[in-house]
Amino acid sequence: MDEFALIDRFFARRAQSRPDVELGIGDDAAVTLVPTGSALVIACDAMCLGTHFPPATPARALGHRCLAINLSDIAAMGARPVWCTLTLSLEEADESWLTEFADGFFALADAHDTALIGGDTVRGPLGMTVTIHGLVEPGCSVRRDGAGPHEAIFVTGCPGEAGAGCSLAIAAKPCDSRSERRLLSRFHYPAPRVHEGLSLQGIATSMIDLSDGLHEDLGKLLTASGVGAELSAEALPVSDDLLEFAGAERALGLALTGGDDYELCFTVPRERERDLVRVSRDWSCPVTRIGETRARAGLVWTRDHQPFTVPDTTFSHF
Amino acid sequence: MDEFALIDRFFARRAQSRPDVELGIGDDAAVTLVPTGSALVIACDAMCLGTHFPPATPARALGHRCLAINLSDIAAMGARPVWCTLTLSLEEADESWLTEFADGFFALADAHDTALIGGDTVRGPLGMTVTIHGLVEPGCSVRRDGAGPHEAIFVTGCPGEAGAGCSLAIAAKPCDSRSERRLLSRFHYPAPRVHEGLSLQGIATSMIDLSDGLHEDLGKLLTASGVGAELSAEALPVSDDLLEFAGAERALGLALTGGDDYELCFTVPRERERDLVRVSRDWSCPVTRIGETRARAGLVWTRDHQPFTVPDTTFSHF
Repeated sequence: MDEFALIDRFFARRAQSRPDVELGIGDDAAVTLVPTGSALVIACDAMCLGTHFPPATPARALGHRCLAINLSDIAAMGARPVWCTLTLSLEEADESWLTEFADGFFALADAHDTALIGGDTVRGPLGMTVTIHGLVEPGCSVRRDGAGPHEAIFVTGCPGEAGAGCSLAIAAKPCDSRSERRLLSRFHYPAPRVHEGLSLQGIATSMIDLSDGLHEDLGKLLTASGVGAELSAEALPVSDDLLEFAGAERALGLALTGGDDYELCFTVPRERERDLVRVSRDWSCPVTRIGETRARAGLVWTRDHQPFTVPDTTFSHF
Repeated sequence: MDEFALIDRFFARRAQSRPDVELGIGDDAAVTLVPTGSALVIACDAMCLGTHFPPATPARALGHRCLAINLSDIAAMGARPVWCTLTLSLEEADESWLTEFADGFFALADAHDTALIGGDTVRGPLGMTVTIHGLVEPGCSVRRDGAGPHEAIFVTGCPGEAGAGCSLAIAAKPCDSRSERRLLSRFHYPAPRVHEGLSLQGIATSMIDLSDGLHEDLGKLLTASGVGAELSAEALPVSDDLLEFAGAERALGLALTGGDDYELCFTVPRERERDLVRVSRDWSCPVTRIGETRARAGLVWTRDHQPFTVPDTTFSHF
């Protein structure tokens, strides 16, 4: 296990400290301080080889991605990330692989001032589990179940890009164009919308992050909130890269059902839409109004004012 | 993934609630409240098939064990467990396996008033990662690095039993005797010393839980504290079951180097030994003085007043 002790030291040495971490990596547990007037937000997401990523995925992308999908959960609650733990399961300890993995992980952790405070390294099939902690004022987290009828539905970024990138990753061929490289990068390096999520506190009535596809995840939000929605397929933000890669029809399918985007989808009541315009000015991604909630259950899509049936998932996840 | 959605509901339905859980399973993240005047203790331990347990391990034991090894980390800090997350990686969702696993998990969780607040279920090789949260007054956690010289060293329970049980689990033969069944059960169902750890706050100057064997784990505590120790092999509590199974010599080896016991090892200054006697009266396990720290580095064992070299690990962990 000396090899694995080395890894632990490798990660421990690079872990950033924070003043609210009383005791970091190296004891039986970490000890942290939650400021008075903050609630703790806790999420946990895992990835494993073959189910969530194909064998050729770069180590740096895995390091980034296992943290990004967790930061995205904190973002979707309107909270600020603070600490995380990482369990890394490896068949063997390859130093150059580990260097790349840690580079990807810590670049993102440092960018979000998120301290690695513990974890475990085990010998086993390649996989990562991150548990992430965030802070939010009690009662101020943005849940899935807060949407009322007649609220606008928004989405950040351009859903479907990561789904296209995922198909490129599975195909494992060299990318032919700049747009393919960008789509692949959207799968490998999702950008958690932490700043955006935080600024939606007090504006969004409900929020979810997109991991399983817009149609499915929005459906979860609506069910939790006890409302339905009417959405317009034309309103969906489809990027030029996605159009070039997939053509109009397949691009629409990917935007609706492709997973792994880690964009935010949220609802805003009419009287707060001005606040959204204000806070979104400094966002690093577009935000698009795609429809409206309604009292009647059900998720109804229209296209050219005609009912539109969401196609079956274009790509399965492995 | 419907099969896996079912599992999530299965676990979500059985998760106990606590008044300090503002939002439990079912959203992007859980939200909990840390009382003013408490620090948060966070630990994370994983188990995977082949590395930490053999294929025939009963599902109920795995459910118990993945939580027990984490509760033990909270115990070793002198903290009180409160919430946990569980990531479960499964090749397939077998309902009877899951029922047994959840029975083992929730029986222990409920016994320690620890709420499951989230997690992830993924399709992959069998394995579990638990992240556990505990509470302790700031500055009151019992760390590894607090031992001074000339303090007594104690251990709970009878180390070596789980190591013997592990060898029985690997052999995967039916147990021939009551003592073999008890040893196997010590490997399958470790008893985290949560009550004992909590009562050592203000008494123990340093503490660690035994996962890799007494000799190795005590060595970590001494190194962290910057002291050495002199210990007596005769003083080690070796159980009759272990003696019957392994004979005197091998039993001693197991007590020193067998892992998986999840007993507590801790140091107590002379003036607090009376407090230890007082608090340990209602413990559910024996506690034994096995030696004393000293200023000079190094872990020295004696036997019949002669220097004694710790044998190489009797059993490797798979």
